[in-house]
Amino acid sequence: MSAVPDARTTVRNPAATGRGRWRPAGLREARITGGFWAPRQLRNAEHAIPAGQDQLETAGNLQNLRLAAGIGEGEAIGPVFADSDVYKWLEAVAWEYARNPSENLLERQRELTAIVAAAQREDGYLDSVVKLRQGDEGRYTQLVWSHEHYCAGHLIQAAVAQVRCTGDRELLDVAIKLADHLVATFGDTEDDKTRDIDGHPVIEMALVELYRETGTSAYLELATWFVEARGHGIIQNHGHEPGYFSDRVPVREATTVEGHAVRAVYLAAGATDVALETDDRALLDVLKQQFAHMWSTKTYVTGGLGARWEGESFGDEYELPADRAYAETCAAIGGIQWAWRMLLATGDAFYADAIERMLYNGFLAGVSLSGTEYFYVNPLQLRGAAHPDNNRSPAHGRRGWFDCACCPPNIMRTLASLDGYLASTGSDAVQLHQYAEGVVTVDLPDHGTVELEIQTAYPWEGAVTVTVKRAPSTPWALELRIPQWAEGATVNGEPAAAGTYHRISQPTGKVALQLPMATRVVGADPRVDAVRDSVALERGPLVYAVEQIDQQANVDDLHLIPDATVAHSHESELLDGVTVLTARGRTGTGHTPGTWPFREGSMDGVGEEVEVKAIPYYAWANREVGAMRVWLPRG
Amino acid sequence: MSAVPDARTTVRNPAATGRGRWRPAGLREARITGGFWAPRQLRNAEHAIPAGQDQLETAGNLQNLRLAAGIGEGEAIGPVFADSDVYKWLEAVAWEYARNPSENLLERQRELTAIVAAAQREDGYLDSVVKLRQGDEGRYTQLVWSHEHYCAGHLIQAAVAQVRCTGDRELLDVAIKLADHLVATFGDTEDDKTRDIDGHPVIEMALVELYRETGTSAYLELATWFVEARGHGIIQNHGHEPGYFSDRVPVREATTVEGHAVRAVYLAAGATDVALETDDRALLDVLKQQFAHMWSTKTYVTGGLGARWEGESFGDEYELPADRAYAETCAAIGGIQWAWRMLLATGDAFYADAIERMLYNGFLAGVSLSGTEYFYVNPLQLRGAAHPDNNRSPAHGRRGWFDCACCPPNIMRTLASLDGYLASTGSDAVQLHQYAEGVVTVDLPDHGTVELEIQTAYPWEGAVTVTVKRAPSTPWALELRIPQWAEGATVNGEPAAAGTYHRISQPTGKVALQLPMATRVVGADPRVDAVRDSVALERGPLVYAVEQIDQQANVDDLHLIPDATVAHSHESELLDGVTVLTARGRTGTGHTPGTWPFREGSMDGVGEEVEVKAIPYYAWANREVGAMRVWLPRG
Repeated sequence: MSAVPDARTTVRNPAATGRGRWRPAGLREARITGGFWAPRQLRNAEHAIPAGQDQLETAGNLQNLRLAAGIGEGEAIGPVFADSDVYKWLEAVAWEYARNPSENLLERQRELTAIVAAAQREDGYLDSVVKLRQGDEGRYTQLVWSHEHYCAGHLIQAAVAQVRCTGDRELLDVAIKLADHLVATFGDTEDDKTRDIDGHPVIEMALVELYRETGTSAYLELATWFVEARGHGIIQNHGHEPGYFSDRVPVREATTVEGHAVRAVYLAAGATDVALETDDRALLDVLKQQFAHMWSTKTYVTGGLGARWEGESFGDEYELPADRAYAETCAAIGGIQWAWRMLLATGDAFYADAIERMLYNGFLAGVSLSGTEYFYVNPLQLRGAAHPDNNRSPAHGRRGWFDCACCPPNIMRTLASLDGYLASTGSDAVQLHQYAEGVVTVDLPDHGTVELEIQTAYPWEGAVTVTVKRAPSTPWALELRIPQWAEGATVNGEPAAAGTYHRISQPTGKVALQLPMATRVVGADPRVDAVRDSVALERGPLVYAVEQIDQQANVDDLHLIPDATVAHSHESELLDGVTVLTARGRTGTGHTPGTWPFREGSMDGVGEEVEVKAIPYYAWANREVGAMRVWLPRG
Repeated sequence: MSAVPDARTTVRNPAATGRGRWRPAGLREARITGGFWAPRQLRNAEHAIPAGQDQLETAGNLQNLRLAAGIGEGEAIGPVFADSDVYKWLEAVAWEYARNPSENLLERQRELTAIVAAAQREDGYLDSVVKLRQGDEGRYTQLVWSHEHYCAGHLIQAAVAQVRCTGDRELLDVAIKLADHLVATFGDTEDDKTRDIDGHPVIEMALVELYRETGTSAYLELATWFVEARGHGIIQNHGHEPGYFSDRVPVREATTVEGHAVRAVYLAAGATDVALETDDRALLDVLKQQFAHMWSTKTYVTGGLGARWEGESFGDEYELPADRAYAETCAAIGGIQWAWRMLLATGDAFYADAIERMLYNGFLAGVSLSGTEYFYVNPLQLRGAAHPDNNRSPAHGRRGWFDCACCPPNIMRTLASLDGYLASTGSDAVQLHQYAEGVVTVDLPDHGTVELEIQTAYPWEGAVTVTVKRAPSTPWALELRIPQWAEGATVNGEPAAAGTYHRISQPTGKVALQLPMATRVVGADPRVDAVRDSVALERGPLVYAVEQIDQQANVDDLHLIPDATVAHSHESELLDGVTVLTARGRTGTGHTPGTWPFREGSMDGVGEEVEVKAIPYYAWANREVGAMRVWLPRG
């Protein structure tokens, strides 16, 4: 290896950039040690990751790779992107190892890594399903749907995580060989390359990460090319309009996100990575606008992304139906990844707020309290009589795996790397973005080590105590994110403005952040037709939902009395301990079932008063699968 | 031929049953001569049908049949069900010939019939696309998606229409040969047959019609078998759950409609045909319940059927989003066909009301005023910024044809056979179901001929004058449907109850029906979450919509002031002459675009007052494609 170039980083973190406004505090620098997230991460490590390996074996993903390596005989099983599930699982194992090293994890990692390495072709190509189904001559002939770059991207991400967290280079060698093969194969035709793009982005983020890890600029250049080549309608006549593949409008001209939600946010995250590493301010400005438009017109109150089942896609502006919300778990994860990169690039608290909303609601709803059962689709309403018409339907309840199993290992890698989203450093400051019980130990260049201990019962309580355990003597500062929802927050008793970072210069001892935890009854912009005249309940970072099992009345017919007082109480035995909300509501619709539902006169029924009990949205469908609503009609 | 059995009928009508409570008055018995529908039928005959033949040529449907007949060389073009478009067009030509015989129609019919006949295989099999793509050995091997029975069904329907209306037997001979082949091939396995069903119903209705035409009971028996075989999960692992194919629940156990809307209502119509011809009261009772459930929980105010783009399917109960309404034009047509058979079977005015709602709104919106441009999908809202992401998207505007061109020729056959839905006869009565300027001349058995002339400016005005031109001297009666919406209707000045047939014994001279034409401001059952706190405007049988081109303000932000007076006026130059509605509304949402759309406090803006102008829903998108809403928020 030659000398380490500037871009290289050894931070144990996804998107470990040194180029942004802020530098992420990696795993082990930031450590979650207790509170809300620690038991979830423990279940991820102890139950989900081992169960995931079993599922990859049962579902045939590992067998595909073995067959591609020439071990045994048979046909490929499962979807064309089956390899990617293995890679996401390997990435989860790597992050988890950084958090909590163990021989068991290392053994699991090395076992699967060896299978992957064996499946790679001599020239670097690697895709077991395409190899088995179409042979070597079938390579890249159906790139729109083959997910060959998509799989390569997840492999590269896993390899980077592996070397950063365990020091093992075996998967990195595979990734480099594959990336070199891609560099040699794709690009502008005048360079004798194939001017073609994968139907599903992710390779962009991955190649930038590999560039960060290796310093090889060809990877950054290819990532840039993939970002720029898209949006010119290369993908025509493939069962969807180009917009589905984010291929209708060039990324620099796009003013919004459109099409398949996961594809769109993965691409945007990759474009942000490119903007970061190439210091492309114009591209970053465009991405800011796209994110803002997504957030103000195409995002659910839960942070869920993607309104439509049709094409798993974003809808039109303000098209946000509660019942048919697709809001794929992977889209929330991609949204977090994009927001994280925007946060690092801009330092704007807005993106940390967005991460918080997606993390506690749209993302977390995708995994059961046990850690091993998943939702693919995350609606904001399920009717009592909802009929499951699809493998992914939430009416089926949570499931241990899916035919299309993108979400489960995506959740695993996110939970395992969560510590990496807590904090970052600037030239003279440490920022806390998310509040969790834990420790942050970071070096400020030219200053020295800062060690912080964070104590909090967040998200149940609004008090966060940051104890400065170690600090440099030179001027430095602590910056605490005050969420946009936290009007009236204080730091050490002084007002702190919502939606900003509150800066405390050279703090010592304990810093007391107090976030207001009054329940918020929120309405929607009237343009969001689907939830007109309804309200959602929020408290702290959590969005609430009413679930049939907790109600006296039929959830389908429940109304919240306007201006009703909302009480809260913590129930430590319920759903692993949740703060519940209660308010007065009414039941009855003033309409007779079985009759024509559209008629003259008011339909408002003055029904019986009932108590309405709400639980955090993320915890729904952990006892039974019944009617559920986030949005409650007023009346 | 042996003696004509009881079931045979020569009525020129779809579903020409002699077994129901009422017997339909066929084409030429009932004749539309002017008013609202006559110019639409004229455009259908003069423009749509000839253009349709050109489209069938251009799109390759006719070429497929020629290739299958051994004329020329090439590959099949278009979707697997391409033949069915030809058959629906042939059916339209036959009905049109009955209304208005012409040599030109006969020539067109005979030209295409000859192509179809030539494509038939020796043993009766006929499906050009399957033949060309899979060869003889591919027959019925992919019946779930091949649409072989579906195409056969449309062929049979065309053949029956042709012989009833033109006397030509050539297509009937093809149909009989094909039906005999189906009878020999499909059924219970103990009879050495293939126990298999087509993924797309329609063969059921068709075989019953062929039974009515020929008296061959084997066709009725096979139709019955197809109806009963369904619903036992025969269709597994074909990309959708069995419910998509109406194959989850046996028809006798089903309490609702589900899955693909067109498939579901075609099947239900076929089951109703079976119930009619086999006098199966139990089956009819089940179908009544299914229809009632559909009508009270899964039908749009426009009569549109099928809420979801995903699977073109019915949603859950009360899942009726305005913006993403699929409401396929074919589903409205299938709904009319089902309701018509239920009307004949039960004599219940409820079904004639349902036909009226579907006909004037959900169906008619599917065709342009010119008669030659179509909508596949019929939403109840289009936002100003809606982006067309699909060939079928209404945001594209109306189109002359589609890759999947099921709707255009389906519209053609419906308009051409519309006269057949006007009237029917009982043992001693003539019923008028739909009000159109025209003449009804029918024979009442044991009584004699009744000749009625109907004069009306319906649906613009509520006065309908029925002149009895000829009548038997024996006791007979005229029954006039009083729509459910027509509270306060009178007949000859006497009150007539809404939702019933008003019976007038032995009328002579002029009978004056007066339907109330006040505008109705209708709300929705609160369970229809998608249109909470919104109203729709109705007048007579018409549902109204506001279209951007007519408004001072942005349709997306328009609210109707509660209890606003609604004025109406007829504009004879607008949209071929429509009665428009005007009311006071407000604009402005009290929310800043570009900000987080979910927050505390009221979102109700007190905007500027503006005039709101509404046109009949069916007429939208004939000037430009802009924002449109059927449901207007109140406030």
